[in-house]
This record gives sequence, C-alpha cells and structure tokens, in this order.
Amino acid sequence: MPEKLIGACVFGQSGGPTSVINASAYGVIRTALDAPEITGVYGAAHGIIGVLNDTLYDLGMEDAAELKLLLNTPSSELGSCRYKITGENDLARIHEVFSKHNIRYFFYNGGNDSMDTCHKVNDYMERVGYECRVIGVPKTIDNDLCGTDHCPGFGSAAKYVATTIAEVYKDAYVYDTGTVTVIEIMGRHAGWLTGSSALAGLTGFPPDLIYFPEIPFDMDSFLSKVETVYKAKNNCLVTVSEGIRSADGNFVAEAKVSATDGFGHAQLGGTAARLASAINSRTGAKVRGIELSLLQRCAAHLASQTDIDEAFLAGKFAVECAISGETGKMIALVRETRDGAYHCGVTSQPLSVCANMEKKVPREWISADGVGVTSEFIDYVLPLIQGENTRIIENGLPRFAKLRKIPVE
Amino acid sequence: MPEKLIGACVFGQSGGPTSVINASAYGVIRTALDAPEITGVYGAAHGIIGVLNDTLYDLGMEDAAELKLLLNTPSSELGSCRYKITGENDLARIHEVFSKHNIRYFFYNGGNDSMDTCHKVNDYMERVGYECRVIGVPKTIDNDLCGTDHCPGFGSAAKYVATTIAEVYKDAYVYDTGTVTVIEIMGRHAGWLTGSSALAGLTGFPPDLIYFPEIPFDMDSFLSKVETVYKAKNNCLVTVSEGIRSADGNFVAEAKVSATDGFGHAQLGGTAARLASAINSRTGAKVRGIELSLLQRCAAHLASQTDIDEAFLAGKFAVECAISGETGKMIALVRETRDGAYHCGVTSQPLSVCANMEKKVPREWISADGVGVTSEFIDYVLPLIQGENTRIIENGLPRFAKLRKIPVE
Repeated sequence: MPEKLIGACVFGQSGGPTSVINASAYGVIRTALDAPEITGVYGAAHGIIGVLNDTLYDLGMEDAAELKLLLNTPSSELGSCRYKITGENDLARIHEVFSKHNIRYFFYNGGNDSMDTCHKVNDYMERVGYECRVIGVPKTIDNDLCGTDHCPGFGSAAKYVATTIAEVYKDAYVYDTGTVTVIEIMGRHAGWLTGSSALAGLTGFPPDLIYFPEIPFDMDSFLSKVETVYKAKNNCLVTVSEGIRSADGNFVAEAKVSATDGFGHAQLGGTAARLASAINSRTGAKVRGIELSLLQRCAAHLASQTDIDEAFLAGKFAVECAISGETGKMIALVRETRDGAYHCGVTSQPLSVCANMEKKVPREWISADGVGVTSEFIDYVLPLIQGENTRIIENGLPRFAKLRKIPVE
Repeated sequence: MPEKLIGACVFGQSGGPTSVINASAYGVIRTALDAPEITGVYGAAHGIIGVLNDTLYDLGMEDAAELKLLLNTPSSELGSCRYKITGENDLARIHEVFSKHNIRYFFYNGGNDSMDTCHKVNDYMERVGYECRVIGVPKTIDNDLCGTDHCPGFGSAAKYVATTIAEVYKDAYVYDTGTVTVIEIMGRHAGWLTGSSALAGLTGFPPDLIYFPEIPFDMDSFLSKVETVYKAKNNCLVTVSEGIRSADGNFVAEAKVSATDGFGHAQLGGTAARLASAINSRTGAKVRGIELSLLQRCAAHLASQTDIDEAFLAGKFAVECAISGETGKMIALVRETRDGAYHCGVTSQPLSVCANMEKKVPREWISADGVGVTSEFIDYVLPLIQGENTRIIENGLPRFAKLRKIPVE
C-alpha cells in the first residue's frame, strides 16, 4: 500500500469539448469531494492555462444539485484551452502553483495532446521530487486515443451522427428532382465518427458512400462513384471526413480563416462545400453541402446514456486510482462481455502508450471498396450509442448546470 | 347539411419538409381511412406531380402500426415537389386523374405556394362542375402563413434552434482565446425561426445578436455591433436569417450553385460563412460560421410534442371539414387560453387569405435596436416548443415509418 497522500486536487479540461466531458468532470469532482484524502477540489479555468495563471475555482463551494447537472451539460464547463506546454518555465510555474495550494492530485481531461501535458507534468514533478499524482481522463469525439477500447465523447457523437444522417436522408431524398448531399463530419486523422454514419443503415436510411481519412482521396474516383449512385437512384448521400486527403498528403479541405490551432494542427472545414461544387460541375446535379460543425460535439440532448455513464466512470476511477497510489496513467475503457452483452470496464494505462499517438480505423473494418464499413465496425460502435439520456427540461429546453465558480483564495 | 359526398381522397405533400409534416399526413390518412364517405385513401407521389403523373399509392394497403410511426418520421414520406401549376393543361389533367379514380377529396399539405395550388385546383373544379372538396393543411418551419396563429412545423424547428443555440453557446464560449460564431437559420422572408434563437436565453445562454430579414441589413452597423460585443465579452454568438438583405433589397447570401427552386425563389445559404469572413477581416477574431441547413427542419428526434399533436390535429380537421361540406379552405390553428394555459384550437380559413402571402414578424416584437426580441415574441413561441416527443427507439436509433407504397390500380 502506498502512503496516504493528503492534499488538494486540481481538475482541468482541455481540447475540443464533447457532449459528455462534463460527465467526466462530475465523476472526478463528486468522487474527490467525497474522498477524505483530498482536502480541496479545485477546477482550473481553461485547463492548464488556469494552473499557469493560478485561476482556480473552489468546487467545494458549489451546490451539489447544480454539480450533478454537469452529467447533461455539454462542453467544458470550466473552460478549455489548446495550450501546449513548451518548456521548463511552464513546468516550474505549475510546480509553484501546485506547491502554493498543496495540490497533490492533478486530473486532466482531454485527448492525446492533453495526455502529453499530463506526461510532462508527471515527469517534471517526479524529477523535482514534488509528490503529486497525475491521471489523465480520456475525451475525444474522434475516438483516436490509443490504449483504450474507445473514448468517452465518441459514443454520443456517433449517436448524433447516425441519427442525423437518417433524418437528413429522409429530407434529402424527398424531391422528384434529385439531389446530391455531402455531409462533412469531424475527425482530423481517424474516421471513427465518419464511419459511424453507416449506423444510419440500421434505420434503413444509410449514406450511399463514406469517405475516410484513412483512405487516400482521389477526386476522379469520388466523382465517378457519386455519379454512378446518382444516375441509379436520382439521389446520393455522401458522408466525408473533414480530414480526407489525397495520396500526396494534402487535405481536400480549404484552409479556414484561422489556419491553425494552438497545437499547430490545421483547422479544417469547407470540404463538403468544395466537394458539392465539384459534383455539380461534373454532373449538373442539384447539390447541398452540410457541415455538422460544432453540433456533432455539443448536442447533449442526443447524448448516449452509455457514453454519459462511461464518462462519469472514467472520471470517478481516475480519482480512485490516484488515491490508491497510481500516477502517470490514463484511464482506459475496457470492452467486456457479460452474459453475452456489452459491458464496460475500466483500467489504467501508462501515459506513454497514449500521448501523441492516434488510433486509426483498421483497414479491415473499412469495406474493400473503401467507401463503407464492415460488420465488425458496426458491432464495435453499436453498444456505445445505446440509451436515451434522462435530462432535466425546463420550458421545453435543457436545464444546464450553472456553477458559481468562486476563486480559490 | 350538405349532401354526402362519396368518393376517394388524395393527399399530397409539397414544398420543404418539416419534422412533423408526416404527423399531419397521419392525421389526414387515419381520419380518412376511418371515414365511411371516403372510399379510397390515396397518396400522391411527390405532391401534385404525382397527381399529374397518376402515380398514386393506395394507403389503405399500409399496415396500421407502420402508418402510426409517421407521427415521429421526419420529412415528406410521400415525396415532395416544388411544382407550380401553370395553366389550364395542368388543371385539366388533374381533373382527368380525379375523374378516373373518382377522387372527390383533395388534401394538400404545404406552405403558401401549396395553398395557391389548392386555390387553383378548387377554382377549376368548381368552374368545370366537378364536385371535389379541396382543403389545404398548413406546413412550414418559416411560420409565415397568413390566416393561422402559427404553422405546424414551426414549433419543432424553433425548439431545435433554441436548444441548439444553447448547446453551441456552451461550446463556442469555451476557449480562453475567444471566438465569434455566426449561425445561419432558415426563413427566407420572415424571421420567426431566427428570432426563436432568443429562447435559448431562457436556459441562460442566449445569442448576443439576432439579425432578422424584416430589418434592412447594414454591414457596417453589423460589424460594429459584433466588435463591441466581442471586445466586451471576448466572444460573440450571432444568429442571422438566411434572408437578410440590404436596404436596396439584395440578399447578403451568395447565390448557391442551384440558383433558384421551381417557384423561382432564390436558394439561399452561405450567409454565415460570408459574415464570419467579414468579421475576421474587421476584428482579426477567430470566427466560425455554422449553417443549420436541413438539420433544423428534419430533426424529428427533437420535435416538440405540442407541434406533433397540432400537426396531427390540422390533418384530422381537414378531413372532418371536407366531409362536413367545406371546400376552398385552409386549416388554421387558433391560440386559445383555457384555465390560464395555452390551448390550440382549429378552424378553417378561405384559401384566398392564405395563398401567396407572407406573415412577417411584427416590428414591435423585435427589440428597438433591431437585434433582439421582445417578451411578446417569447410569449408567442414558448408554448409551441413544449413537450418532449415519445418516439420509438431501436438500436439506439429512431424507428421511422416504412410504407409499402403500393400503386393504385
């Protein structure tokens, strides 16, 4: 048994929000508030930036019922950032703030860049001999984190995408005149979310063609395939990843106004509009480009209850692991089968297996022609989108958490 | 009492789909199937085009449980069109098809163009002495039909818009770096749906600025207002109607690839992207343009139960009116207060008060500065978005109606 570590904890959220990242926040906060070892539960304003600036909220001052509403409140309630820790100065400053508040637990909720931040903080604290337990909590709609079966946030986004594709299919196929509809879905390097559009097929209304970032994009082949479907059906619904790129590595997307985010990643978008225009030029068809944009990652009203439960579990388990002595880990979800049914377990993984790597869709889960998925893909995603969430409605609208956000003195 | 009119009925759907247009379809179909006067219940494939082509489905051959699923199936199940009846040839052909199948009831579900079609068909049948009762059933997310308090389809779209704005607000306000987000909402000439974004304010997360098609758009004033909000809050969320235009009458939207629809209306879109780009040039802010596109009119998963009930009621009442002898009418919803609470009644209006006219948002319901709404606007919309719909879920996804669509012989 490791020594009991008494001190405060700080929790932060980083990277792009999801529908359920606050469910993980609630898992961390509730569990930490209830843990006798943890003397203070602080939230960092805008992730690691809040630590660097010493802008911390005292989450012990929040109303318990309001905190619980985090389970159904989308986006990152404490604020997010895309700040990359660059050198010793940042780490020394983090050490300074941790020391000031006797912070002995650091929980950071994000994607692979955030796991890199955890990794650096953990290494530094070990190096300087400051006892602090660092646990990463996974989050990404892209589902591209290594070391975990899947990521909290993905299931809800997949449920949103599959539901929306089925609904748009009904709309796009309605006219006698025919249309080609191109729907752009997030996922810079991995096609998990774009592939999830195939689940609309379970409703009877599937996309006709799916374009993955894992498969090099060829415009001629694309236009030819769209034309074939359009001629046969007088309609065509295509889903494309924002991250599709040609064999030479160039993104099909036009660069957006803000060319890169804080990590130097290209901000993509505009792919749907660009492809729709190319289709119109080739076929003369009426076209419509739709970008699901932020909607796919903030539509908490359509969050999967399975995803909410697992996001909460990941946050809760992070605190439990840290209290039990673990550090330098990321919480991982484990797919189990119990009585023939899907069950989600949790474990912890060394941060080194998670940071700065991306898990792509295996080629064998994409159909041979490259524009669809196999049954293995469907079987993988389907359990994650189950369960209609129970949320509080007031005035016909969602009731989100409203925190007081009282600064730590 | 008018003479009992024995014969078949035909029902068609026209114009842009909504989340609940099929609830009206179910209201018509179910009531007609149960009416002894009506000898056959036929659905026109793609609205009036299906009548002209004599492509009719025998809805009496459908499974009753499957028909009931229309209550939660978005878009126009029988197919839609944007065909404008142009002359005597079309009307003579409609007469011919009606005579062939002894069609004595014509129910047409659509917006103001569709009411014009009803009007022409009714006049023609009266002129040639063919006894046929023609009733229009209102439908439009734009809520711009005259003669009715509000339109089936609007409440669900408004609920979608208000919910989505609240969710996007949470997401857009998340970063320390700040963003200006511009969200484009449908409504070519009337700002009912765009104004409904203000209801997000009831959740605590309102749009900062709202731009209506009723108010002439001035780019300098727009940029200046956005800049003021952005400087004060480090963020700004703006909702804009696709139909905003400058004082000289020109739409701000860039024309899309398909420049006009079948009625000669401009196909709008691209406004959000265009404005976001202008804001970036002026302020240097990170910007994001989001077009709600088809999602706002097909998101049946977020349909208001009030809207579903009223859409059904409008369809049902159309059949009841026709059976009781009415013709040349559009069904209208009437706002009543019972025991201090909102209640929706139904009546019928002469088609002449509904066809080819547009009901705009009254100037006094838009705030004095032109970029918000008054409490009267909120009070008007709020009852229409109430009620979470009960829909059937299979595999975590919506179960939509699947009709057999067996042709009438």
